[in-house]
Order: sequence, then structure tokens, then C-alpha cells
Amino acid sequence: MKAIINISLKAGVLDSQGKAVHHALDSLHFNGVEDVRVGKQIVMQLSNTDEAKAREEVTQMCEDLLANTVIEDYEIELVN
Amino acid sequence: MKAIINISLKAGVLDSQGKAVHHALDSLHFNGVEDVRVGKQIVMQLSNTDEAKAREEVTQMCEDLLANTVIEDYEIELVN
Repeated sequence: MKAIINISLKAGVLDSQGKAVHHALDSLHFNGVEDVRVGKQIVMQLSNTDEAKAREEVTQMCEDLLANTVIEDYEIELVN
Repeated sequence: MKAIINISLKAGVLDSQGKAVHHALDSLHFNGVEDVRVGKQIVMQLSNTDEAKAREEVTQMCEDLLANTVIEDYEIELVN
């Protein structure tokens, strides 16, 4: 089973990397951009084939290690 | 229109950040993980409402700035 984990800064947290990308896009004359947020995507191959257990395990990984839950949100998608 | 851009290292390119995460998960006794790849997710708000034009513009952004196409692949998803 494959887990796709998208980690993004919470709304309201300053995203300096996003601001830098936005500024760079402006410099390259891409003018139709209103906002840019940069996050992480972690793709993981799991040996677990039980979806409920896999989701529980990945949630625990996010809480313990992968995300900083003070400033980041995470979303977990499981694919067979 | 919102563009979600997922940028990942091409298969075969060493992902040292992924290896570090994998190792850290092992240390925390998450044993069911076979492989970890770490990529970027860029979420962008566009003023363009035409899907074909937005896709063309975002593809150009990826080629010019967002992705290093020598070692990275990118996927674009557009959401209204």
C-alpha cells in the first residue's frame, strides 16, 4: 500500500518560501499568480495492506515525526 | 483557479532526505515502511479561469523555475 502525505503550513503562518517563489515568478513575468504556498509531499511504500491500520500508523508518524503540528497541517491519502 | 503542483525526484535519483526520514521512522519503531520519497507540493492561486491556458502557464513555470527537470518530475492538477 502506498501512502501520500501532503504537509502544508497552516493558514496564517508566514510562508517565506512561498513568498520567494511568488516574487521569482513575478520577476519572470508570470503575472497571473495571486498566492503561492510551498509544502512537502512524502510518498511512502508500506508493507501493511490493511487500510485502517495503515492510516492509523501513518497518522502516528505524522504526529511523532513528519509534521510540526504547531504550524503545519497534514493530509493522508492511501492508494492500493 | 487553484493549481497543485507535485514535484518529486525522478526514479533512480538518490533521495537523501527520503533516506533520512526512513531511517528516523525505523528508529521510532515504525517497521512497516519499505520506501520513502520526499518531494515538494506547491499550491498556487491563479487569476486565470481558462483551464487550458492555466495549464500551459503553470507548465511553463515548472520548466522555467519550479522544477529541476534534469532530476525532477512534476505533476499539475487544476481545481476550480
